[in-house]
Amino acid sequence: MSNSFGNRFRFTIFGQSHAPAIGVTIEGLPAGFAPDMDALQAFLDRRAPGQGKYTTTRKEADRPEFVAGLVDGHTCGAPVTAIIRNTNARSGDYANLFRVPRPGHADFAAAVKYGPNRDVAGGGQFSGRLTAPLCIAGGLALQLLEEEGISVSARIVSIGGQTEPAAIQQALEDAKQAGDSLGGVIECQCQGVPAGLGEPMFGGVENRISQAVFAIPAVKAIEFGAGFAVAAMRGSENNDPFYFDELGVVRTRGNNHGGILGGITSGMPIVFRAAFKPTPSIAMEQDSVDLTAHENVKLSVQGRHDPCIVLRAVPCVEAAAAAALYDILLEGRY
Amino acid sequence: MSNSFGNRFRFTIFGQSHAPAIGVTIEGLPAGFAPDMDALQAFLDRRAPGQGKYTTTRKEADRPEFVAGLVDGHTCGAPVTAIIRNTNARSGDYANLFRVPRPGHADFAAAVKYGPNRDVAGGGQFSGRLTAPLCIAGGLALQLLEEEGISVSARIVSIGGQTEPAAIQQALEDAKQAGDSLGGVIECQCQGVPAGLGEPMFGGVENRISQAVFAIPAVKAIEFGAGFAVAAMRGSENNDPFYFDELGVVRTRGNNHGGILGGITSGMPIVFRAAFKPTPSIAMEQDSVDLTAHENVKLSVQGRHDPCIVLRAVPCVEAAAAAALYDILLEGRY
Amino acid sequence: MSNSFGNRFRFTIFGQSHAPAIGVTIEGLPAGFAPDMDALQAFLDRRAPGQGKYTTTRKEADRPEFVAGLVDGHTCGAPVTAIIRNTNARSGDYANLFRVPRPGHADFAAAVKYGPNRDVAGGGQFSGRLTAPLCIAGGLALQLLEEEGISVSARIVSIGGQTEPAAIQQALEDAKQAGDSLGGVIECQCQGVPAGLGEPMFGGVENRISQAVFAIPAVKAIEFGAGFAVAAMRGSENNDPFYFDELGVVRTRGNNHGGILGGITSGMPIVFRAAFKPTPSIAMEQDSVDLTAHENVKLSVQGRHDPCIVLRAVPCVEAAAAAALYDILLEGRY
Amino acid sequence: MSNSFGNRFRFTIFGQSHAPAIGVTIEGLPAGFAPDMDALQAFLDRRAPGQGKYTTTRKEADRPEFVAGLVDGHTCGAPVTAIIRNTNARSGDYANLFRVPRPGHADFAAAVKYGPNRDVAGGGQFSGRLTAPLCIAGGLALQLLEEEGISVSARIVSIGGQTEPAAIQQALEDAKQAGDSLGGVIECQCQGVPAGLGEPMFGGVENRISQAVFAIPAVKAIEFGAGFAVAAMRGSENNDPFYFDELGVVRTRGNNHGGILGGITSGMPIVFRAAFKPTPSIAMEQDSVDLTAHENVKLSVQGRHDPCIVLRAVPCVEAAAAAALYDILLEGRY
Repeated sequence: MSNSFGNRFRFTIFGQSHAPAIGVTIEGLPAGFAPDMDALQAFLDRRAPGQGKYTTTRKEADRPEFVAGLVDGHTCGAPVTAIIRNTNARSGDYANLFRVPRPGHADFAAAVKYGPNRDVAGGGQFSGRLTAPLCIAGGLALQLLEEEGISVSARIVSIGGQTEPAAIQQALEDAKQAGDSLGGVIECQCQGVPAGLGEPMFGGVENRISQAVFAIPAVKAIEFGAGFAVAAMRGSENNDPFYFDELGVVRTRGNNHGGILGGITSGMPIVFRAAFKPTPSIAMEQDSVDLTAHENVKLSVQGRHDPCIVLRAVPCVEAAAAAALYDILLEGRY
Repeated sequence: MSNSFGNRFRFTIFGQSHAPAIGVTIEGLPAGFAPDMDALQAFLDRRAPGQGKYTTTRKEADRPEFVAGLVDGHTCGAPVTAIIRNTNARSGDYANLFRVPRPGHADFAAAVKYGPNRDVAGGGQFSGRLTAPLCIAGGLALQLLEEEGISVSARIVSIGGQTEPAAIQQALEDAKQAGDSLGGVIECQCQGVPAGLGEPMFGGVENRISQAVFAIPAVKAIEFGAGFAVAAMRGSENNDPFYFDELGVVRTRGNNHGGILGGITSGMPIVFRAAFKPTPSIAMEQDSVDLTAHENVKLSVQGRHDPCIVLRAVPCVEAAAAAALYDILLEGRY
Repeated sequence: MSNSFGNRFRFTIFGQSHAPAIGVTIEGLPAGFAPDMDALQAFLDRRAPGQGKYTTTRKEADRPEFVAGLVDGHTCGAPVTAIIRNTNARSGDYANLFRVPRPGHADFAAAVKYGPNRDVAGGGQFSGRLTAPLCIAGGLALQLLEEEGISVSARIVSIGGQTEPAAIQQALEDAKQAGDSLGGVIECQCQGVPAGLGEPMFGGVENRISQAVFAIPAVKAIEFGAGFAVAAMRGSENNDPFYFDELGVVRTRGNNHGGILGGITSGMPIVFRAAFKPTPSIAMEQDSVDLTAHENVKLSVQGRHDPCIVLRAVPCVEAAAAAALYDILLEGRY
Repeated sequence: MSNSFGNRFRFTIFGQSHAPAIGVTIEGLPAGFAPDMDALQAFLDRRAPGQGKYTTTRKEADRPEFVAGLVDGHTCGAPVTAIIRNTNARSGDYANLFRVPRPGHADFAAAVKYGPNRDVAGGGQFSGRLTAPLCIAGGLALQLLEEEGISVSARIVSIGGQTEPAAIQQALEDAKQAGDSLGGVIECQCQGVPAGLGEPMFGGVENRISQAVFAIPAVKAIEFGAGFAVAAMRGSENNDPFYFDELGVVRTRGNNHGGILGGITSGMPIVFRAAFKPTPSIAMEQDSVDLTAHENVKLSVQGRHDPCIVLRAVPCVEAAAAAALYDILLEGRY
């Protein structure tokens, strides 16, 4: 169901922002795998709030407790479950949001879907906090992929339309001063991927990575290889010619195809970019509605909010890509 | 598995370009539904080859035969299966392609994945022909959505980077003369969608539509609402404010969110765009490899090829979106 | 969904007794497999009607046409679809059954579930005819298992409570004369199964085989190993002690566990038995209801009916077991 | 995957006997449901060890902590996760079992499947302890079914082949004195089930209940309605005739079909029986093998063991049936 992802490497995420805990259960990990917990924690720390001038001031340890599936630091073959206790949350921040949905956020859609019992505190199950369990599962997938010689690495391409570091800094400062927010683009590369992975039609690499990446809050677009630019190319320009390299491996000149042909890997690096919309929660006054009083109202969102989540989303993109890729890798073996 | 899509409205596509038939089995159709076969045929005809100056000359009736699931023109509750016989195929077109993969096509990836027994004729299971069964399933979903007051409609936004009709025509003519090909962008709108549909995380509307749309050959990118443009917006600009319209329905001013918030529908139209790469099969000479002789070679692709599949892909995008949306609609009911 | 079975070796059955065709689509077959079509046809023939004195007189060729997935007799990696045309059906046999459900049959339950558009002819999608596509998928699984040194073989244990051949013949004759019907028990053994296959909890071998076997019409019970008899045993009697045989392979003395411990194979033969109820369609008059007139009525079922389907069900049991076992085998590899 | 069950009401069980915790994540619960926690605890207490003279002396509170999915005692629409900490476990009990598999237990199969990193303590993931999370999920399903007027109730039919209470007591005492164990049969009835639920073929009620019930350790057989007895009946005897009762509801005289026809509910009570083998862990000396030394050895199992788990398994059977039935109920609604 919707909180679950994967066929062979399958995990289910649970929790809401202010629930006692958030966490994930992972099925399909082979027995005998010893996760590098320090590396995993370092990976998780890259997404945690309270890190910089432009990220939220909510401080949380975000240290997972593994309650099942490990024996003496090794996977035993049973599902692995990790939980993270929510300890530092100011519940008063969101009191008004039960009545007045925040523009750009899931509040209204959730109100229609779940009704009066929905969890609004901290964004409930829609909170960016739920990327922590995604990063646990993806973080383990990353380590397992590394054992296979496959690396997944993402980086920020742009923030607020700017690519140059000084211009990015300025844009962030301006937005923060204005109580506004910025979006951006993150690019991810997967290297060392063998050819022949993925399945045709609905099981292709683009289909699977997309399904995982759109689970990250604020993502509104994804493109593979040359992406949207292919639409303006001619075939003679877009096609990547094949050739045998010096080791006798088939490669392509250029990589407009982003390592994926017909949904299946070609052996060239998988490349994709995801667009993140600016954080919906801004300090500026906005128009909204009062769902109880049935009238149009003004809304000012108080509290601690990320002016730019892109800064924290890089490991989330790696996690999503790694989860999809490791699932695809396992699928290719029988 | 990969040739299947959906949870409640679930279909499985089968066939290869030169197999005796292609087809689809659909589970989850409610009993008592009487498909409008004329409307379905008209829908399928929109994608069939042999229609215009810029589409392939391969002519096929593409008339499905419903072999299961219908009684007196009504669904009986059992799975519905339709097959389309492949009758007009020039098998000699592709003889060389077993050894020499075509750049930009699935040939090489399929060679690695399936080995010497793969079906190369006409592109095998990767052929655009397999969008016909997708359009059967999607065509039925379209009709069922219409009964619910939901419409799905796509249109070409650009071809070869051109948006103006006269410029498009010129670009097509130039490409055809050069033996080259063009890509384009198709936009799809879903109107009348109730709020509250879709599931959080991996079951969101973007996740599901993406999984379906990337099954269409040549798609390399997808964006929802304002899409990649959100990355350069500020939150104050990207957020769509809520208001009550004159009927007391919650709407937003603007629709940068494309009808989807937190993966769940807001009640505003769902809007997305898919980018199609130019057809890989071009008449111009290209570099490739001979997989048997292990040497670099030149390749000229002969035969009948679409210089621009975008012209035929519009119903495919509608079909994919409708399939995902109808599945999501059924999921919302219990 | 319900007409589908399997995770790695997955197939979807379609068709109704009087639909133009019945058939199956199979995903997950490895490329390069060359089915022995003669062996498959011989397997299918074992279930076909019109074979003996005690089976129905409806004669059908039951020869599948493979419309997708094979190239030169080998699987190409794409889904394999086979259809069987329904040619010899006397539609007049069932005219009254729309109003008056036959006791012991699915008629009433289907009437509630599917309403007035359900297919009643020949039992619709509930007909034993649909075991033909099950036997196609299972028949292929049988061949693939044989390549792995695994054999699946079923036999009739009893009919009408009788185990001795002469007594069985007499019971069949008596039942036929009376216009009545008989049930029976079929036992199935799977030899050469490696230890360590299957998954704990819901993915165990018993769970999976049961899910497959209960898809065969008329099955009402299943037992593994010593089955129900274990309930009256002591642990000291039921436990099968382990020992190393002369080849150093771990075996058990006795096989009360039927080759399955904790849902996982032990390496001993898998043994199970399924109970088939007597054919519901009997010539004798029975009480029923008229769903349209809302009154109690008498019913005499005319037409051609199997007085004992157990005689034809043996390959169905093998097919179901093979399908489950091959799926489990593939699952164990990564 | 294997630790998960269900399509609409779907849950994933995690944990091993000596892991920090065991638990379950449940997706598909409607928002606004307020579980009766006292009733749930009472339900769980029925399965807990340390209750009677013939059950194990291991005492555990077995009180679940709900860490996600509930807000003010109501489901909020997000997955519900409950964990139970393992606190009172004597780890020394099982030290030798890494080398010497216990006859009748999963030890050997698990050794082959998971290798040296498997969790052997307390039976690892195969422990009967894992029925606690099953009972949490099933306990909630029971309450939701009750809201629909559907009740699920199980009872012990026999222990050690005895049905009469005094004889059962004697058999238990004898077995305990001998350091041996007993099995039994549990029957379950589901009342108030509407007709028309379940799906044909692989999605039938028997298929689904079987898949759930075989997840309970020690189950080796299942039968529906008259069960194995149908194999010796004639059709005229086995068929349950239909009639309209005084309320105009269609019922059957007799219930050999156990409320299920063609995999779909008829409206009559669903009835099934499951056979439990005697507890494999007995004090008596048994033959086994030393997997490390590769030699045949003798084994005496020490520690605290249930001489008869049937006494505690009744709520487990109810839980499994309720989980399957609630999933089927939700499936029937769209």
